[in-house]
Amino acid sequence: MSGCLLTVEGIEGVGKTTNIKWICECLEKQGIPYVQSREPGGTALAEEIRQLLLTPRDESMSELTELLLVFSARAQHLHQLIQPALARGEWVVCDRFTDATYAYQGGGRGLDSTIIAALETLVQGELRPDLTLILDIEPAQGLARAYQRGAPDRFEQEAIGFFSRVRQAYLDRALISPERYLIVDAGKELVNVQQQIKTGLEQFCQRHAAAASPTGDLTHGD
Amino acid sequence: MSGCLLTVEGIEGVGKTTNIKWICECLEKQGIPYVQSREPGGTALAEEIRQLLLTPRDESMSELTELLLVFSARAQHLHQLIQPALARGEWVVCDRFTDATYAYQGGGRGLDSTIIAALETLVQGELRPDLTLILDIEPAQGLARAYQRGAPDRFEQEAIGFFSRVRQAYLDRALISPERYLIVDAGKELVNVQQQIKTGLEQFCQRHAAAASPTGDLTHGD
Repeated sequence: MSGCLLTVEGIEGVGKTTNIKWICECLEKQGIPYVQSREPGGTALAEEIRQLLLTPRDESMSELTELLLVFSARAQHLHQLIQPALARGEWVVCDRFTDATYAYQGGGRGLDSTIIAALETLVQGELRPDLTLILDIEPAQGLARAYQRGAPDRFEQEAIGFFSRVRQAYLDRALISPERYLIVDAGKELVNVQQQIKTGLEQFCQRHAAAASPTGDLTHGD
Repeated sequence: MSGCLLTVEGIEGVGKTTNIKWICECLEKQGIPYVQSREPGGTALAEEIRQLLLTPRDESMSELTELLLVFSARAQHLHQLIQPALARGEWVVCDRFTDATYAYQGGGRGLDSTIIAALETLVQGELRPDLTLILDIEPAQGLARAYQRGAPDRFEQEAIGFFSRVRQAYLDRALISPERYLIVDAGKELVNVQQQIKTGLEQFCQRHAAAASPTGDLTHGD
């Protein structure tokens, strides 16, 4: 099976870390080679750019500066990690990707999505995630969890209205290309969330295997 | 007189620091209020981005990462320093600006200039420098000076062919819009270089004053 880019999206406190661990367990059980990464970040340089983006500072960062920093980190991540891994036939499980840019810089900050789309094409060419899991939760519930983790970063300092717009932008993205997205109700009990993810992954693997080999089913069931 | 953006360009070792000091002396003599800045940089955050760009590192930086970092720093510089200064009616004397992007990332690295032009429009809108001084020198002569300054940064580590392409790209830019550029032969003695700059600045001030007030000459001669 060729490599796949699987991205996991959602607002602060939605449980991405826990659920990405679960996704990786599911892939391991199926014998699928993968690398786990995150955005912004994924390489030493891109992690430095991440720090610029997340660290609260006195100087107000312009929306365009933020957007271009996000895409500079992404260009580096694609060049150094994602594209080589996909070329080796591995999966890449990535904590956030360009949907987060549409959600945070587009929905949250109000930047025009045509600008984001132009930068997406510049940096990614035609590369898009094969599957995107949107972990969906009420912002109040997510933020209550996120705030327990310690000092808020530059994004976590935003007001709840910001996260409501981010959440809505994610859901709007899924409406446009429903075949690429799996919306997971992340407000439920963990065991229920994990079952939603496992089922969704199995269905994706079946579709992916059928597309790769239309005459036979190559899925490894577990 | 309204604010002007005056940019100074040229390869390593061409004498930008010395000549920018001279330019500022000329402006002071004419009573023109100005701020002096540089790119990449000009604000605390943009200076952090500059460090990412200049520091040699083991990880190879993709050309697109470099380009987007340059424009992210520029967006911040415009937002925090350049646009407010111009709005106050001050001049901004800037050590490098977008012509350097066309020269280094375009000419030097070989990136398509239409990509640079698209980012220029995104970040600057219609803002372009009012006057650009290109300090021109043979790369071998400039690099010999630059290497005396200590450990080379990530750009100074490039081979001489890189700087020949950068120089050519600067000269090509001036051919397209000759009214905006002043090419200074920076290989001459300092006193000669300073005279070229002084004369060029005086001519620019006359044109600028005439454009601002077609009925009278507002230039302050010295």
